[in-house]
Amino acid sequence: MDYVYGPGRNHLFVPGPVNIPEPVIRAMNRNNEDYRSPAVPALTKTLLEDVKKIFKTTTGTPFIIPTTGTGAWESALTNTLSPGDRIVSFLIGQFSLLWIDQQQRLGFNVDVVESDWGQGANLDVLASKLAEDRYHSIKAICIVHNETATGVTNNLATVRKLLDDYNHPALFLVDGVSSICALDFRMDEWGVDVALTGSQKALSMPTGMGFVCASPKALEAAKSARSVRVFFDWNDYLKFYKLGTYWPYTPSIQLLYGLRTALDLIFEEGLDNVIARHARLGKATRLAVEAWGLKNCTQKEEWFSDTVTAVLVPQYIDSAEVVKRGWKRYNLSLGLGLNKVAGKVFRIGHLGNLNELQLLGCLAGVEMVLRDVGYPVKLGSGVAAAAAFLSNTTPLIPSRI
Amino acid sequence: MDYVYGPGRNHLFVPGPVNIPEPVIRAMNRNNEDYRSPAVPALTKTLLEDVKKIFKTTTGTPFIIPTTGTGAWESALTNTLSPGDRIVSFLIGQFSLLWIDQQQRLGFNVDVVESDWGQGANLDVLASKLAEDRYHSIKAICIVHNETATGVTNNLATVRKLLDDYNHPALFLVDGVSSICALDFRMDEWGVDVALTGSQKALSMPTGMGFVCASPKALEAAKSARSVRVFFDWNDYLKFYKLGTYWPYTPSIQLLYGLRTALDLIFEEGLDNVIARHARLGKATRLAVEAWGLKNCTQKEEWFSDTVTAVLVPQYIDSAEVVKRGWKRYNLSLGLGLNKVAGKVFRIGHLGNLNELQLLGCLAGVEMVLRDVGYPVKLGSGVAAAAAFLSNTTPLIPSRI
Amino acid sequence: MDYVYGPGRNHLFVPGPVNIPEPVIRAMNRNNEDYRSPAVPALTKTLLEDVKKIFKTTTGTPFIIPTTGTGAWESALTNTLSPGDRIVSFLIGQFSLLWIDQQQRLGFNVDVVESDWGQGANLDVLASKLAEDRYHSIKAICIVHNETATGVTNNLATVRKLLDDYNHPALFLVDGVSSICALDFRMDEWGVDVALTGSQKALSMPTGMGFVCASPKALEAAKSARSVRVFFDWNDYLKFYKLGTYWPYTPSIQLLYGLRTALDLIFEEGLDNVIARHARLGKATRLAVEAWGLKNCTQKEEWFSDTVTAVLVPQYIDSAEVVKRGWKRYNLSLGLGLNKVAGKVFRIGHLGNLNELQLLGCLAGVEMVLRDVGYPVKLGSGVAAAAAFLSNTTPLIPSRI
Amino acid sequence: MDYVYGPGRNHLFVPGPVNIPEPVIRAMNRNNEDYRSPAVPALTKTLLEDVKKIFKTTTGTPFIIPTTGTGAWESALTNTLSPGDRIVSFLIGQFSLLWIDQQQRLGFNVDVVESDWGQGANLDVLASKLAEDRYHSIKAICIVHNETATGVTNNLATVRKLLDDYNHPALFLVDGVSSICALDFRMDEWGVDVALTGSQKALSMPTGMGFVCASPKALEAAKSARSVRVFFDWNDYLKFYKLGTYWPYTPSIQLLYGLRTALDLIFEEGLDNVIARHARLGKATRLAVEAWGLKNCTQKEEWFSDTVTAVLVPQYIDSAEVVKRGWKRYNLSLGLGLNKVAGKVFRIGHLGNLNELQLLGCLAGVEMVLRDVGYPVKLGSGVAAAAAFLSNTTPLIPSRI
Repeated sequence: MDYVYGPGRNHLFVPGPVNIPEPVIRAMNRNNEDYRSPAVPALTKTLLEDVKKIFKTTTGTPFIIPTTGTGAWESALTNTLSPGDRIVSFLIGQFSLLWIDQQQRLGFNVDVVESDWGQGANLDVLASKLAEDRYHSIKAICIVHNETATGVTNNLATVRKLLDDYNHPALFLVDGVSSICALDFRMDEWGVDVALTGSQKALSMPTGMGFVCASPKALEAAKSARSVRVFFDWNDYLKFYKLGTYWPYTPSIQLLYGLRTALDLIFEEGLDNVIARHARLGKATRLAVEAWGLKNCTQKEEWFSDTVTAVLVPQYIDSAEVVKRGWKRYNLSLGLGLNKVAGKVFRIGHLGNLNELQLLGCLAGVEMVLRDVGYPVKLGSGVAAAAAFLSNTTPLIPSRI
Repeated sequence: MDYVYGPGRNHLFVPGPVNIPEPVIRAMNRNNEDYRSPAVPALTKTLLEDVKKIFKTTTGTPFIIPTTGTGAWESALTNTLSPGDRIVSFLIGQFSLLWIDQQQRLGFNVDVVESDWGQGANLDVLASKLAEDRYHSIKAICIVHNETATGVTNNLATVRKLLDDYNHPALFLVDGVSSICALDFRMDEWGVDVALTGSQKALSMPTGMGFVCASPKALEAAKSARSVRVFFDWNDYLKFYKLGTYWPYTPSIQLLYGLRTALDLIFEEGLDNVIARHARLGKATRLAVEAWGLKNCTQKEEWFSDTVTAVLVPQYIDSAEVVKRGWKRYNLSLGLGLNKVAGKVFRIGHLGNLNELQLLGCLAGVEMVLRDVGYPVKLGSGVAAAAAFLSNTTPLIPSRI
Repeated sequence: MDYVYGPGRNHLFVPGPVNIPEPVIRAMNRNNEDYRSPAVPALTKTLLEDVKKIFKTTTGTPFIIPTTGTGAWESALTNTLSPGDRIVSFLIGQFSLLWIDQQQRLGFNVDVVESDWGQGANLDVLASKLAEDRYHSIKAICIVHNETATGVTNNLATVRKLLDDYNHPALFLVDGVSSICALDFRMDEWGVDVALTGSQKALSMPTGMGFVCASPKALEAAKSARSVRVFFDWNDYLKFYKLGTYWPYTPSIQLLYGLRTALDLIFEEGLDNVIARHARLGKATRLAVEAWGLKNCTQKEEWFSDTVTAVLVPQYIDSAEVVKRGWKRYNLSLGLGLNKVAGKVFRIGHLGNLNELQLLGCLAGVEMVLRDVGYPVKLGSGVAAAAAFLSNTTPLIPSRI
Repeated sequence: MDYVYGPGRNHLFVPGPVNIPEPVIRAMNRNNEDYRSPAVPALTKTLLEDVKKIFKTTTGTPFIIPTTGTGAWESALTNTLSPGDRIVSFLIGQFSLLWIDQQQRLGFNVDVVESDWGQGANLDVLASKLAEDRYHSIKAICIVHNETATGVTNNLATVRKLLDDYNHPALFLVDGVSSICALDFRMDEWGVDVALTGSQKALSMPTGMGFVCASPKALEAAKSARSVRVFFDWNDYLKFYKLGTYWPYTPSIQLLYGLRTALDLIFEEGLDNVIARHARLGKATRLAVEAWGLKNCTQKEEWFSDTVTAVLVPQYIDSAEVVKRGWKRYNLSLGLGLNKVAGKVFRIGHLGNLNELQLLGCLAGVEMVLRDVGYPVKLGSGVAAAAAFLSNTTPLIPSRI
């Protein structure tokens, strides 16, 4: 069934699904269990408590939904908003585009603020809109923390500041799919009302769990939100939370145990150390790109993403060839350019359970691939630049000191 | 993390999630992969083709959705119907009740035909309704093939016959969650328009995949259905089917490989042999129940289910105690009675990848548990009755002859 | 690669290799590691300490050798004895026969004390030999604690008593392959000098580790033992024990982690509870055999084995047919009769990580198989007898109370 | 149980045990089975046939022994030789030293031909000895194909030529532990009489299987060899080969299935492609060492090993610090210098299921570690040199073209 076997490990550097650590694979290697036995609620209880930590919230209510990021989006929107509601949404790349498409299809009145792909959300426009919106027609601000298609990280603290400055009651909904557990994300401090992520991203698990965390204000909004929802309805969860059985329908036993281990690993490393590791690997990647003489799709440093780097290739190169070549020759999986930047960028995902030498192996591979597709890269140049930085910044592994 | 370890194997006899065969567990024991590489579409293509076989359809279009049975229900309804549409739906137990609840919350005009729990769908009432409905206000008939809460199997062929007799164009939507791949189900022959199941039932996989299969008529209906849907929208799938990439959002790599193996095992055994095995184990279970002097919750033989048997306990016994005791003393997982039959029945799930001696071990355990809770069962009586039947009917394992 | 797939679980009731619990399978599901890193010695240290507990020794020195039981035998003999040494060895079945064959081929002067297969070691003869041996020509007594071929358990306490009574300095070497971790075994209390077992027996792991435990007296004997040995030489281990690196050659990383978990499970259950569980399952099996009207190969109750029961079949039946039929029709693996009892007995292994309902499923299967081969068993009779006993004696699972 | 968890993958570059490919880990992820059922002999038969292919023999008889390389050595020697036999053995590093130690302890008259560590076997001395040995007192030539401690590959074709030139009947015994399945090894063509390897080396499996392959001449010698052996005795295997049950004692079920998959992967890649891949990775490693300005422990190109490179560090550096640092900071496992070269070399194992980017990641790590320990390496220099070579020589992955 491995149609495309190649010797050695696959070097998985797409920005999701990402590498699963062995202890998580082990934890999931099990038969099904009765989810109505006392064991599963006991386990779930610890998970819900601990999931709050990765959102940095103590007041939020988490929902672990058997779905993908797309479903998590839908859960966030339909539980808090009603058809026709005006929402401000930022279009800065393929994933924000898809979320906006969903928002429109769900019947909201979407006020789209578009930026060039490679730029962050235009928060000046948000300021104007908030300033003008004296009667609070804007019901929600929807923003991706990290646009996976372009490697752009938006400044959520500024969004909160603007809402506060204008004393605006709009809900603050954040797609944290490629940020939470990897970038600095602070649900409570930033007053985020709904934040969400998926299991196959920085949590380093298989696809299949959407994590949605709702602030008290979001839960309140859910009471009057008139969007039709059943599978994604928080109320069904809340009902079972009260009963102490937690699940309105059958969860994946394997993913529950996998999540337990994934969280244990994150807490053992320390969430802030995990974030620092991502910062380190992100910076190293950007130094390599610079050394190669290539440009980051992200246009300003303030937006640089520590989970994914979209690399612009010269016009005479098709970035899809880079991806294809990496896979065909070096068992290297890079991210394609999507939509507007198809053919123009390839993406290096550097999120999840990943370390320095894995990244350097990837960078060495990218160099060889670039040469294969006709870009005159100096082999070793990116690796050298990245290694120089990593050599100065990588801490000892605490358990081995 | 195994809070509740007990020596030896867990005897898993809830009607889902069910036992996963070792080859499927093995197949899923893997790291993530780039789902945009050529490998995943190639694999998916074989899966979609082969999934049609378990629905016994050649004309249907399958959707493999990262969700549970509840999500599959929602997909079936929202893609084919519009708010306000009249649908006839049969309430015969907890799962049909939950589906009806979903139908109502999705805004349909649900014409509920209720039966006593333990009886099948009242098809006489359906006949009357169809007879009266000259202007075809009924847009769909919704029916569970097998009600998991009571162990009742409905006669789908009769539903089709009635629709044909009255030349009624209503869509025929079937919840096959605890039937498909275990009971005789014939999508094309019975003119079913949407059928669905979940991975954790007779396919013997973890939870996480909802399988929905749509007839050409259902696909046609989807074009005009006005129910709001995004995550569950078939159109997104169809768009990617055309592109040959298949997935509108990230699938679970592990479940894809697991499904490949699960289907391989089913085809190796032969789908009809799988169904015959379920018939054999179902009958054996009922013989045991009879030998114990207990009653089947299912009131007539025509409705007996070959995937789950709900056993009525005498009034002086709380069936929840049976379940609790089995788990606490014998590492046996039985199904609770739900809602109206809570405390009155316990359920033996006998579906999925299961064989004769596993069932007999379970039956022996039920006997001991019954004694524990004060029912004067003759130990060995149910096992003897079941074994007598199995001894006459179990074929040799073909690969070992 | 599963040439002989049959639906459902394999019912593994050979007396080894036995069922591996899921947590152990999970623990072994891993890549290799550098065994010279600090991690492996740290792990090994805990293993060596804990292995002593299953031998019930505080003064013994354990060796975990990458080999099978046969290799463990060789290690026990060659490290303590010299060619030409007189040893008393008891022939009571196939495994004691094989050990004696090894003893002879290794050049010892083996004084064989033979019993009928089905009887225990003749300790009266031992008494005479010890009485006569005033000049201590007997260097060692070799005895299997539990003869796996016939289901006979020898009385080791009596052996010790005889040695003490005659104040005889002979080494006391015990094959505990199918006893240790399942039967009551007390290395220190009984003054056993070398005891051994294998990982695939009551420890419920894969084959691959031979456990040999040496008393101080045995270690002393090793200094002058002139049997040629290299791979099996304890000195190489002792050298690395001193260095704190433990391994003279590459151990199996997977088995080390598997052993850690296997021991954890045993200690969680409690070693004495494990032994009590074996006693319970052994008794239940014998009650079933009696109910079937069949005879135990073991001729007296004092020798009954709680880990394996060899069942005599009537002369008109070939016991190999019982085994073959079980495997071909019911996915049931029973033990063949070996050598002298080939065709005459089949064996039910009831050792390792096993519980009541697994055993009852097996017994139900044996009943059906017996009927298949023409023995007029009353179906359910053995199960009833076993269940009656188990129903009275099985404790609640402590973690679930 | 992972005492020393660090984020991301462990970079395993010791020369054994090596990385296990995921499909092999999956194949071994299973419960025990009855090894006396028809399934295991059927599987074993294919394994024995296919193991011959990796030895490049059609006339040899393979033995798969539950042991390590040390045990395989013992099997090779004790089955073919008698105590007192004169054998010529080459001491060129730690593993040849250990084998010689074993030879001496087994009672052979070992004629040791020593070279400096870093040089190959002195075949001129062999020539003299053969020339002088008119009465054929030399019974065997024992040589390691690849000395793992120094990264030296001996020329076996020359050994054969010398034996032929002098028409000498000595047995030709080869330790192929770190060569077979990685380096060019031709048992039949080179007239090797016994060759051996272990599962944890180029076969990329866990430790636990010793593979010994005997020529017809070796089998003939076994008939008169008087070395004491039981566990390692080929005769016991041959007896069971004839019976068609194959195993004189319990094999590891898991390793059998693992071996099946390991061989399948090797044959899918093509044994000669596997060997070419090792040549490519070996050469790339040496180019990196050169670029770092360091010396290979191996003194001449003719002896360069394509499976392990021992790198000499400057005198002011302790090579053990390199290893320690790699593990503590970068999750990198390198090989220590052993015995005479302890502190002087560290070793990069580049054998088994490994690809280009894994190696480049390792080389990048070594560069950072070298800097850490005070060696003024130019970061990226080794990677650049290796990548330049690999970029020109790495073929497309056949299954992905």
